[in-house]
Amino acid sequence: MGRLEAFSDAVLAIVLTLLVLELLPDGAQTPHELLANWPTYLAFITAFLTVGVVWLNHNQAVSRIRHATPIVQALNLALLLGATLMPWPTSLISAALEDGDRPDQIAAIFVFAIVAILISVPWLALDLYLIRHPTLLTSSEDVTWMRNHARISMWTLIAAVASVALAFASPLASLVLYAVVVASFLVIRLREETTDPTGLEDD
Amino acid sequence: MGRLEAFSDAVLAIVLTLLVLELLPDGAQTPHELLANWPTYLAFITAFLTVGVVWLNHNQAVSRIRHATPIVQALNLALLLGATLMPWPTSLISAALEDGDRPDQIAAIFVFAIVAILISVPWLALDLYLIRHPTLLTSSEDVTWMRNHARISMWTLIAAVASVALAFASPLASLVLYAVVVASFLVIRLREETTDPTGLEDD
Amino acid sequence: MGRLEAFSDAVLAIVLTLLVLELLPDGAQTPHELLANWPTYLAFITAFLTVGVVWLNHNQAVSRIRHATPIVQALNLALLLGATLMPWPTSLISAALEDGDRPDQIAAIFVFAIVAILISVPWLALDLYLIRHPTLLTSSEDVTWMRNHARISMWTLIAAVASVALAFASPLASLVLYAVVVASFLVIRLREETTDPTGLEDD
Amino acid sequence: MGRLEAFSDAVLAIVLTLLVLELLPDGAQTPHELLANWPTYLAFITAFLTVGVVWLNHNQAVSRIRHATPIVQALNLALLLGATLMPWPTSLISAALEDGDRPDQIAAIFVFAIVAILISVPWLALDLYLIRHPTLLTSSEDVTWMRNHARISMWTLIAAVASVALAFASPLASLVLYAVVVASFLVIRLREETTDPTGLEDD
Repeated sequence: MGRLEAFSDAVLAIVLTLLVLELLPDGAQTPHELLANWPTYLAFITAFLTVGVVWLNHNQAVSRIRHATPIVQALNLALLLGATLMPWPTSLISAALEDGDRPDQIAAIFVFAIVAILISVPWLALDLYLIRHPTLLTSSEDVTWMRNHARISMWTLIAAVASVALAFASPLASLVLYAVVVASFLVIRLREETTDPTGLEDD
Repeated sequence: MGRLEAFSDAVLAIVLTLLVLELLPDGAQTPHELLANWPTYLAFITAFLTVGVVWLNHNQAVSRIRHATPIVQALNLALLLGATLMPWPTSLISAALEDGDRPDQIAAIFVFAIVAILISVPWLALDLYLIRHPTLLTSSEDVTWMRNHARISMWTLIAAVASVALAFASPLASLVLYAVVVASFLVIRLREETTDPTGLEDD
Repeated sequence: MGRLEAFSDAVLAIVLTLLVLELLPDGAQTPHELLANWPTYLAFITAFLTVGVVWLNHNQAVSRIRHATPIVQALNLALLLGATLMPWPTSLISAALEDGDRPDQIAAIFVFAIVAILISVPWLALDLYLIRHPTLLTSSEDVTWMRNHARISMWTLIAAVASVALAFASPLASLVLYAVVVASFLVIRLREETTDPTGLEDD
Repeated sequence: MGRLEAFSDAVLAIVLTLLVLELLPDGAQTPHELLANWPTYLAFITAFLTVGVVWLNHNQAVSRIRHATPIVQALNLALLLGATLMPWPTSLISAALEDGDRPDQIAAIFVFAIVAILISVPWLALDLYLIRHPTLLTSSEDVTWMRNHARISMWTLIAAVASVALAFASPLASLVLYAVVVASFLVIRLREETTDPTGLEDD
């Protein structure tokens, strides 16, 4: 487990840091251009929050797994595949909001949703697999945690589909809503941990 | 060994994450352009699977080595040289399938095969070296593992040569075949581990 | 704490290493062009020192925290958000000093100050939170350390605001002053550690 | 020490992996273009070997230091500054050999030598500092190791100056010579370790 944990953390840390590439300018920027760049900032924040939430959850989940079976490793690799893709829709969305027309923006949100699904589906599978194999977990309370997490993964899937539907009305509103949902997940998870004494002992 | 392991993991994690650079667009993309980009997606998946398999195997191999002699370090560095090159043929293949003509595509597949060989040859050398120096391994069962792995490395070499030959008929078929072979390796290795109780105890 | 520490270190190591991207040329450079590039070198050194100081301080701060509560994790993530942004103002400043006019340069320094504030504010919050919750720290001497660090964070905030004010007179002088302030922080911190036996025992 | 070691390893791993960016093409490459790119391949190999040797030496040096004083941390950070710069001269050299004229090539080799000096000087200072403070080392044999390493650092400095002198006659010969010198260092170090039983026990 130690090496799987370290490897996943390294991948997530790199994804988080590569998001800044989207912000690097081609040349000198006027104050006006810097302000006009706001869609890029919004996309950056949304992607940063998403990867941050993935990291926090991954952190929690992995600390509850006692043993990395091949299935756990494969599902974890699938989950990382989705995470490493994150800079791609971030880049597409910021480009589409700045220079693209409506169909480009909807397509960019669509790619974002696909990437969110590529992260959520293997995670949901991992949760369900662990619920069925509780001997792989460190304690019986972990099953409850995995059930909660499976529910969150389900909601993330629904949010991804909803964000595509909303994108047809307004791509920007869709992105803002997604950022708000992710930020709420972050707050909920942090609160949950505070009130849950088991969570505290796991750190 | 600990530091060699952590360093190798870091390198492989970065390679895995840098593959996304190939996907980053220069500007807004129309839905049509996104779909027309499929060769890039195929090249990305193939490269991701390849690095993923290298990581899983490296993980397994390194956990069986008790002691990092200079030869082990040098062969490991040579293996990482090949792995860090992976984004290069990935980029060449996707560019050649999108904008290039037939000779460009064959050349790109050729570079891919060379990089696969640059990974396989030092690995094969490492396997053979460890088989001859079993005192460097943690247990006698590891010799069997190394022999199996040496056989897989041999097959990877043969697959690399075959993929170049096939590229003259169809570069795309060659890439697809390579992706299928790598995905099969992944499945076989994961299955093998499941049925091998020793593998379970190593985690 | 171990995983939070490793993750933060990985993020800071990647930020430090990505700063070099700003230096990579588009093609062959004449000796004259290399010399004319000095604003890029100055921006690189300033950013490298800044991230280096953040790493040293983070190193020290984290070794004094016994327990990562959700608040600690969230503030640490906020701090990393600022740190991952660092290549952005570095790139803006070097581009503005080379090709931009006065307003572009002031804007670039302004972005640099905002990023410095984005790092300092969560750090100040983290210091104050830990001072109020001394049970999260490893020893009572750590409260003194956190108080000192809070004071430094306050000065960094003031320096950031001052650098923007100075940028209206001379963007270049502002950048040089900032580099000197960061270098002084580095020297002060290193001296402080030398005379503080507690600091030595923490390594 | 543990965190300094992990941080340095992460930085060196990222530098090693970022070198591939130089190889990524702008579009489809004809077989002829791929072959004409050889200066890039030569620069890549030279830089990879250099960073590899830095890693192996760093690995050895750090395992002999018992205690990271602020001076050790500062010199290590200075050494990493040089290492993170490595992709810059690599990029300059390959661009100059492909598109530049003679002065561009000499300037690129000059930058390479400066970066080599930026790595060697803090390293030499670190060696000399540790020789004067043997209590920071784990055993008395480490002083001998540090003296040997100081001698190698001196030779690296001389090689850097010589490579610039040679560059006036032939930039390409200078690069080839440098690659050969670094490869020899690698072989010597690996042999040395093999015959030195102390080196074996440090792993």
